[in-house]
Amino acid sequence: MRKIYVFDTTLRDGAQGEGVSFTVADKLKITKKLDEFGVDFIEAGNPGSNPKDMAYFEEVKKLRLRNAKLTAFGSTRRANVAVEEDQNVTALLKADTPVVAIFGKSWDFHVTQIIRTTLEENLNMIRDTVAFFKEKGKEVVFDAEHFFDGLKSNPIYAMNALHAACEGGADWLVLCDTNGGTFPADVAGIVKTVVKRFDVPVGIHSHNDCGMAVANSIMAVMAGAVQVQGTVNGYGERCGNANLCTIIPNLQLKKQLRLVPDSSLCELATLARYFSELANKSLNEYEPYVGNNAFAHKGGMHIDGVLKNTASFEHIPPELVGNSRRMLMSEVAGRSSILKRIQEVAPWLSKESPEVQDIMNRLKSLEHDGYQFEGAEGSFDLVVRRTLGKLRQFFQVLDFTVLAENQWKEGNSATAVIKVEVNGEQEITAAEGDGPVNAMDRALRRALELFYPQLLKMRLLDYKVRVIDTQQATAAKVRVQIESTDGERVWGTIGVSTNIIEASWVALTDSIEYFLMEYEKDMALTKENEAWMEGAV
Amino acid sequence: MRKIYVFDTTLRDGAQGEGVSFTVADKLKITKKLDEFGVDFIEAGNPGSNPKDMAYFEEVKKLRLRNAKLTAFGSTRRANVAVEEDQNVTALLKADTPVVAIFGKSWDFHVTQIIRTTLEENLNMIRDTVAFFKEKGKEVVFDAEHFFDGLKSNPIYAMNALHAACEGGADWLVLCDTNGGTFPADVAGIVKTVVKRFDVPVGIHSHNDCGMAVANSIMAVMAGAVQVQGTVNGYGERCGNANLCTIIPNLQLKKQLRLVPDSSLCELATLARYFSELANKSLNEYEPYVGNNAFAHKGGMHIDGVLKNTASFEHIPPELVGNSRRMLMSEVAGRSSILKRIQEVAPWLSKESPEVQDIMNRLKSLEHDGYQFEGAEGSFDLVVRRTLGKLRQFFQVLDFTVLAENQWKEGNSATAVIKVEVNGEQEITAAEGDGPVNAMDRALRRALELFYPQLLKMRLLDYKVRVIDTQQATAAKVRVQIESTDGERVWGTIGVSTNIIEASWVALTDSIEYFLMEYEKDMALTKENEAWMEGAV
Repeated sequence: MRKIYVFDTTLRDGAQGEGVSFTVADKLKITKKLDEFGVDFIEAGNPGSNPKDMAYFEEVKKLRLRNAKLTAFGSTRRANVAVEEDQNVTALLKADTPVVAIFGKSWDFHVTQIIRTTLEENLNMIRDTVAFFKEKGKEVVFDAEHFFDGLKSNPIYAMNALHAACEGGADWLVLCDTNGGTFPADVAGIVKTVVKRFDVPVGIHSHNDCGMAVANSIMAVMAGAVQVQGTVNGYGERCGNANLCTIIPNLQLKKQLRLVPDSSLCELATLARYFSELANKSLNEYEPYVGNNAFAHKGGMHIDGVLKNTASFEHIPPELVGNSRRMLMSEVAGRSSILKRIQEVAPWLSKESPEVQDIMNRLKSLEHDGYQFEGAEGSFDLVVRRTLGKLRQFFQVLDFTVLAENQWKEGNSATAVIKVEVNGEQEITAAEGDGPVNAMDRALRRALELFYPQLLKMRLLDYKVRVIDTQQATAAKVRVQIESTDGERVWGTIGVSTNIIEASWVALTDSIEYFLMEYEKDMALTKENEAWMEGAV
Repeated sequence: MRKIYVFDTTLRDGAQGEGVSFTVADKLKITKKLDEFGVDFIEAGNPGSNPKDMAYFEEVKKLRLRNAKLTAFGSTRRANVAVEEDQNVTALLKADTPVVAIFGKSWDFHVTQIIRTTLEENLNMIRDTVAFFKEKGKEVVFDAEHFFDGLKSNPIYAMNALHAACEGGADWLVLCDTNGGTFPADVAGIVKTVVKRFDVPVGIHSHNDCGMAVANSIMAVMAGAVQVQGTVNGYGERCGNANLCTIIPNLQLKKQLRLVPDSSLCELATLARYFSELANKSLNEYEPYVGNNAFAHKGGMHIDGVLKNTASFEHIPPELVGNSRRMLMSEVAGRSSILKRIQEVAPWLSKESPEVQDIMNRLKSLEHDGYQFEGAEGSFDLVVRRTLGKLRQFFQVLDFTVLAENQWKEGNSATAVIKVEVNGEQEITAAEGDGPVNAMDRALRRALELFYPQLLKMRLLDYKVRVIDTQQATAAKVRVQIESTDGERVWGTIGVSTNIIEASWVALTDSIEYFLMEYEKDMALTKENEAWMEGAV
């Protein structure tokens, strides 16, 4: 298997994406994660332009990386400045990494119009800077900025920029489509020419402004590039960088190239989610391979096909990248797939059971109100049981008030008062919280824990709010989705209302009811097992 | 300019995307919009599998389409059923559209394993069904499902499927990469072969499971396909369909092909946003051409370059697709770009003014708390003025309480009581609302309108909630962003807190303060103008 080197720049180019901002602590966590995952290079910052990056390079020395080489990024020296006196060069050296990535201009327009120097001096800047770092014993990656645009504008000059880097002793020539405007066929042709002309190994750095960064990277590798630069989840300036979470499985699963260890590949979806948490951006659900929908089937015929043979509508088995298959419900899903989900809750029902129609009608009416049971399996389960009259009432809420005042103080700015009844016994409790939902959650738990101490095991994992009818502004409907766990299981519940407190309340109580029900089933099973064990002794 | 036909399937394949669901009224609006935009075909539904689609086909007859041909989608007849007795075929005919798209199997595996008939009978099904609709006078598009996978598995059979469609009289042969697993170079090669072998024009239908649906469509067109199928914003099953909002500008701006009228192209960003509203999915901000970040610059060197010449870091001028340039602020943005934004508010400040450092410190501390001023220009403006002490206090909130109870009733489930002071006068008001934020908004306006009747002109456009620290679940921080308008201007404001009510409150009051300030400036300007006019008379 031919090796293709993965050069991750999430911490450098990725951090240029809108809304992406990593603390030094985040950056250290990410470095560790990328190293464990098995990328070859971690480009971690630009010490010359960002003081926070310098602090990171100090801290990161304490980490022992097993797979990746740490890389610092910076520009060539400025025009008409001696290389050893250039501030950026000095900062880059101070970062003290085994690898440096030096970017230089290869588009004549940028040389004369943006950095405003002569074409000749720019070549000197490239040659000098690369040579300087080679003398210091570094592995030097030369990033030819705007290489593809440069080649179209002045092919001889663009090639001369690469020659200058080679004369300086560069270990890598990376061709950058900085503005993301190049098409796959052009990338393939140009990479092929460069690979033929130079002995130094070639890399590709693509941006997604034409929606083709992944394809451009693939075409470059097929044309002879042996290093791919990109970011986790495609974070990056404007439309983002080439997405490594798509490129890695594309090449490793479909072109039999080796990018990361196979054991890492099945951690890919986890990696993508971990990064989206740290970057504080929700992961695009449509994302190839790793998105929540990547293997979600909604059309009736598709679901039917996948039930017969998963290869019918899946290009790879989702397990290979640590993702999983989901069957969605909708008006196009067809009765059979909804029936299948209903039967998971109530196995005694058949296609002909009249109750099935009742459940479908109830689901349809809730969907009309804005509910979506994709990702809210807990609530789905409860709807089925409630419609069947098969849910015992664990508790009843008799009264409930939430009060929020403008005495904002950290920790306590809202109060909830709740009165519940369990098995004929009433209990009234109050609790303060960070906000109305938090106060409500605390009060409800406090009241119910007296009756169901097992609730101590359960906690909320995630709380999401989505406005689903924005044209109404503050009077719009909101959909609240909650994810809860008891340490083993994870389940989702949902609530919809024009009132965020009501929507949260519905999702919260569903979550608790679902837990109590599942807990009771587990207990019943344990008792059965115990009885069986006793009989066996 | 060579014409490439745009075949939109947002209403059919797009509606198979997770969370996408259109009402009949939505579908009619979308049809009108697509027709105005200038696509050539609107594939609007599958009348055989979805009863809601049938209702739509009835209603749509009342619309007069100017550009697009309405298309209904359905499968070939079933095995061993006469074509005129097949239910799907009958439904398709009943839809009464000028064009029908018939999909049939071209992958031998699907024939024998999924629909479970003989290879021979499947070819009959294709031939018969196409011929039936040709006899009825329809334009027939044959969608060869899984064509690329089929060709790899059994090339002769896949080609025979196309032959059968041609024998039936198909007007178009569309090659579908249904599972989205095919690579651009393979698409190009296969399309070239088919175009050479058949006289019937060829189309391409790609899915995005390898992140290359756009590239595959482009490669197919460059290889001779003259019809591109896709959806607005790439909505569709699993990872989505090929995104027309990327393909259209790619081909029209960069390959000099004609897909839609040029006047439509500069409405592209508006189209994308309109569809995301109707689909109730927020538009991916990274989306090429139409995303909110597509022309947003964050890196200091990039901003510097763009200020010198926009072509330095933009592959096209954003106006061509109706989008716009944005300069973002961040630690990598560099002082100069933040200074530029500060100077827009306070033009008298220079780089050296000590106030600039105060403002930067204040912004940094707010960003640390979770604020993001990208998209919240109103709040940014107020932060600058407040730090400078240059904001007159339009009102003061003395006291404020919100109460929510479990008497959920549509329209009124929360109450807010607010006490304000304006110019020494106090006013207390209460209002009910759909939820706490709505009640608060109403009470505040009611109180302030007495003093500032111009507030009647202002209204909220959008209200967004984002949980920014999900690991804390209900005690997490939320970021509320509000967009407001006075009918001419649109401005954004922001609030961050662990308490959703407080966060909303901050964004709401900022929005009102910003409006009052701008209104006062306008009035001053009008007075100046009037004085000048009087002097001139």
